[in-house]
Amino acid sequence: MEEFSNIINEHEFAIDTVWVALCAALIFFMEGGFALLEAGFIRRKNAMSIIAKVIVDISFGGIAFFLVGFGVAYGESSGWFAFDIGITKADLGLGLTVSNKLFWFIQLGFAIASISIVSGAIAERMKLWVYAVLVVVFCSILYPMVANWVWNPNGWLFLRGFKDFAGSAAVHAMGGFAALAAALVLGPRIKKYNSDGSANSIPGHNLPLASVGAFILWFGWFGFNPGSSLGAVGNWELIGSVVVNTFLASAAGGVSAMIYTHYRYGKIDITMVINGVLAGLVSITAGCNVVEAGSAIIIGLVAGVLVDIAVLYLDKLKVDDPVGAIAVHGVNGLFGTIAVGLFAIDGGVLFGGGTTLLKTQFLGVFAIAAFAFSLTFITMLLLKRTVGIRITKEEEIAGIDESTFGIDAYNYDE
Amino acid sequence: MEEFSNIINEHEFAIDTVWVALCAALIFFMEGGFALLEAGFIRRKNAMSIIAKVIVDISFGGIAFFLVGFGVAYGESSGWFAFDIGITKADLGLGLTVSNKLFWFIQLGFAIASISIVSGAIAERMKLWVYAVLVVVFCSILYPMVANWVWNPNGWLFLRGFKDFAGSAAVHAMGGFAALAAALVLGPRIKKYNSDGSANSIPGHNLPLASVGAFILWFGWFGFNPGSSLGAVGNWELIGSVVVNTFLASAAGGVSAMIYTHYRYGKIDITMVINGVLAGLVSITAGCNVVEAGSAIIIGLVAGVLVDIAVLYLDKLKVDDPVGAIAVHGVNGLFGTIAVGLFAIDGGVLFGGGTTLLKTQFLGVFAIAAFAFSLTFITMLLLKRTVGIRITKEEEIAGIDESTFGIDAYNYDE
Amino acid sequence: MEEFSNIINEHEFAIDTVWVALCAALIFFMEGGFALLEAGFIRRKNAMSIIAKVIVDISFGGIAFFLVGFGVAYGESSGWFAFDIGITKADLGLGLTVSNKLFWFIQLGFAIASISIVSGAIAERMKLWVYAVLVVVFCSILYPMVANWVWNPNGWLFLRGFKDFAGSAAVHAMGGFAALAAALVLGPRIKKYNSDGSANSIPGHNLPLASVGAFILWFGWFGFNPGSSLGAVGNWELIGSVVVNTFLASAAGGVSAMIYTHYRYGKIDITMVINGVLAGLVSITAGCNVVEAGSAIIIGLVAGVLVDIAVLYLDKLKVDDPVGAIAVHGVNGLFGTIAVGLFAIDGGVLFGGGTTLLKTQFLGVFAIAAFAFSLTFITMLLLKRTVGIRITKEEEIAGIDESTFGIDAYNYDE
Repeated sequence: MEEFSNIINEHEFAIDTVWVALCAALIFFMEGGFALLEAGFIRRKNAMSIIAKVIVDISFGGIAFFLVGFGVAYGESSGWFAFDIGITKADLGLGLTVSNKLFWFIQLGFAIASISIVSGAIAERMKLWVYAVLVVVFCSILYPMVANWVWNPNGWLFLRGFKDFAGSAAVHAMGGFAALAAALVLGPRIKKYNSDGSANSIPGHNLPLASVGAFILWFGWFGFNPGSSLGAVGNWELIGSVVVNTFLASAAGGVSAMIYTHYRYGKIDITMVINGVLAGLVSITAGCNVVEAGSAIIIGLVAGVLVDIAVLYLDKLKVDDPVGAIAVHGVNGLFGTIAVGLFAIDGGVLFGGGTTLLKTQFLGVFAIAAFAFSLTFITMLLLKRTVGIRITKEEEIAGIDESTFGIDAYNYDE
Repeated sequence: MEEFSNIINEHEFAIDTVWVALCAALIFFMEGGFALLEAGFIRRKNAMSIIAKVIVDISFGGIAFFLVGFGVAYGESSGWFAFDIGITKADLGLGLTVSNKLFWFIQLGFAIASISIVSGAIAERMKLWVYAVLVVVFCSILYPMVANWVWNPNGWLFLRGFKDFAGSAAVHAMGGFAALAAALVLGPRIKKYNSDGSANSIPGHNLPLASVGAFILWFGWFGFNPGSSLGAVGNWELIGSVVVNTFLASAAGGVSAMIYTHYRYGKIDITMVINGVLAGLVSITAGCNVVEAGSAIIIGLVAGVLVDIAVLYLDKLKVDDPVGAIAVHGVNGLFGTIAVGLFAIDGGVLFGGGTTLLKTQFLGVFAIAAFAFSLTFITMLLLKRTVGIRITKEEEIAGIDESTFGIDAYNYDE
Repeated sequence: MEEFSNIINEHEFAIDTVWVALCAALIFFMEGGFALLEAGFIRRKNAMSIIAKVIVDISFGGIAFFLVGFGVAYGESSGWFAFDIGITKADLGLGLTVSNKLFWFIQLGFAIASISIVSGAIAERMKLWVYAVLVVVFCSILYPMVANWVWNPNGWLFLRGFKDFAGSAAVHAMGGFAALAAALVLGPRIKKYNSDGSANSIPGHNLPLASVGAFILWFGWFGFNPGSSLGAVGNWELIGSVVVNTFLASAAGGVSAMIYTHYRYGKIDITMVINGVLAGLVSITAGCNVVEAGSAIIIGLVAGVLVDIAVLYLDKLKVDDPVGAIAVHGVNGLFGTIAVGLFAIDGGVLFGGGTTLLKTQFLGVFAIAAFAFSLTFITMLLLKRTVGIRITKEEEIAGIDESTFGIDAYNYDE
């Protein structure tokens, strides 16, 4: 019998390893999605610079998350942060059925997704090397601290019962409000806003390329959300619910963005439809494991409208976010986290659970947003006062690709 | 011992959940493949409109398949259709080892693949909102009825022993003949055919983009076909055969299309080679579980030639199918379904099985093609007579992207 | 108890089948990565020709590997090669826990990856049909012989303890040195080198497209390396190590290429950063299962610099490799294989293991590189003397897309 026990244990680890390794690969592929979506949504002259920034997110951010960040997030925690170098061999207290290293790899995907949100908002005007410094700070300290609060078993939000399954708060609101701070310190692109306060539209240079990115992100989300189960054994019903909720919210976000922009502007805004789909995905990410399918549809419908309202509002505030990252990830990360307090089958206001969970969700997501915003603001300000964060006016007009790389993304002559 | 039984049962569900969830994710990603392939194969001025139509397939089609379609397909069946709202919790009688919700998600992939075939054939001239109505009808009623016939254990074709493993008939012929009807009612694009009956070639605007789509589809098919096993436990040999047959037929389709177009036209037709690969995939989809590897090669070789002949023939009939969807999916779905009757190891004519299976395959696929064609024809006609299906001549000349969205897919100036 | 044994055995096969089938699908998708990376890095006028060549790799190469190559690699081996037609049903002596057919499919991915390296180096000037002959020779005989040496349990390098987990030598050095021979026999593109020996830069026509390819390759590598475990049962720790090492080396390659090109040229070379990431991946492929995470970072850092040095050195030798395939795969495949002899925890020089392993690694990879180079050189020379390998000067100036297919990859007019 003991032999069987060992084999069965080995099988459980194997099944969960297959699940987590492949979900993590899908999550990793989302970096390609971010890069191409952002590249397509900005101008030709900066297309390769934004792809370079996402490569910085992955490579500089990944090594920082390996050397420092993971220890901050999942080390022996004081409740607010930990500090262990590298991937400790000890039991992380998470009941993992995969190796710590594999757990690191899936957590890496979340960390670099969060910073990749920022890369979109600072597009077309930030110095590449200084951005790399921000990436290292973000992936070493800022994101890991929030991950510690939410997912470390000693984290203060974890202990309060804060619910954020795959990271509407810890990944998306975190990235989105860091993006807001970064965009504010950086200031808008030249000629984005007129003296009368109105905004000029700067259309994306290659919308089919942006669509490639969007489809990769949509695909990768089916690793991102169900993969957060961290194992399949014992979770077959959960995984089914998560994928269905994830799909329905994204579809509903697309539907409502299409209808809403048609009625509001007289013409469908196709880039907003893409953002509506993504907003639906962001907003279901916190609660995909605890809401019913019908609630997922409602959450997605709201997200698809909310993203457009948020984009307009940010433009009124003259916050220049070239790809809509703050509206998609920040605002909908906030909304999605709060929505758990409304729609959770167990504890949601609308399901007779009272307001305890809702309050916790509010507290948690505002704490995270405030932390992300203020620490990123300070970091950017420090960088601005020391090394400078913004490329010169000449470089901005010529484009970063020309000034930093000496190339043009497209050479169609021959 | 009972404890072991429970654990072993739990493991089986976990293994099959990992398998189906990830195959379903790959199948879902094929929507990106459809969108980009179709966008690349049509003109620049309609590139985003076709991507929008695929987003409509996913979002409107997906919600319709959730609210209505799945119940029609897999509810308590009369043999022809069922009607249960949503995903019932009851046993669907399919011996599933995954949750009903996860089963829904993989079936969703088939449903939206089928309607995405139609989106290609109506490209560059159909009104977007009216197309959304067609999508809802198709994903609520038409496709689910056929899925009921073929895969519901009470379906009339299922009971007759009709063999269509992953849907050459139920998905591809279904979509392809619906596409034929839609293209016929819609009529050809302006200047596609001359008064003497000859056709003008309207080249795709971005063939590398189409190639991105083709590679995504090719990749996704390795979820589509083996994932139709609906579980891995007990299926390790089956899954090996399915992937090898799927690969070999696609490779053979590429080889024969390359050789055939070289000899027929003096120059290789590279877009036809891409379609040859896809035709090979479509044609092996019905029989990938019951034919030998050598037969898969033969089926693929035929498909790669058949697709070119079909494209030419459809042009003679003045059926304007901008991306070749009818030839790839309709004609090769038909061929692939019939090929099962010839090549099935157990029951195929060429393997001494007599003609019973072949007759069933003929009956089934022609019933499906006739149903798809006639019901789509009627739906399109109703829409034409009421709300109108076709954009204005001015809109068609300007392009749908300009007229519906007010944008240009590419802005290379800055 | 026997019943339990059977079930447990069945579960093991199911788990490993899920793992290998999905990793193999990811590996297969890398072909899309090769095609798009290569297309983006060359000129517009040849974009579809290189995609066609990768389709030839897959389709002609795949069928050749099915009919002949697999038997040469994994048949009853003499130590140097075997010859069994097709996929034999017998036990291959590898202790497989997946079907022979599924094993064939994952091996196919390695074979066509290897030849796809060659397709990059011969871009823009080789005849398509003659290339197809090279592909068939390579996938029938050349690559399979090397796979036999390294991975067949009777292979002479296998028996000597040569370590090449996922193929830095057998796939990448093999492809890279075949590419070197092919590029040498073919000669440089018109106007690539000046009479004074200096090289002209011929920029890629669509770097975002190349980036799509790079992200697909990066993603697929998380099937390529961990999938080489050929099963998950018993390998949960191994798989965690492999994915972490794979990631870290790629990230380090990106970091070092970015820093190095910035300091060497005053401007970051973004295409070299992409190649640095790929070089990191190639160089960790041999040893990802036997080195520590810190070693993976060092290996990646070296690879990211080495690739740039190699590109420059090849240009001095007037070896025209339009996409840098020889530098990325050949040189870094060599380096990565040797690095195992330095960094292997068990047997590496730097870990007190003495020089035995290092010598074996040297011997093995130089044998493979010499074999790949000389046999490809002879094959290309034979083809040159008989049917001719190079397109005419007029065709080269017009572009292969125009001369072979009669098309333009992009048609942006309408």
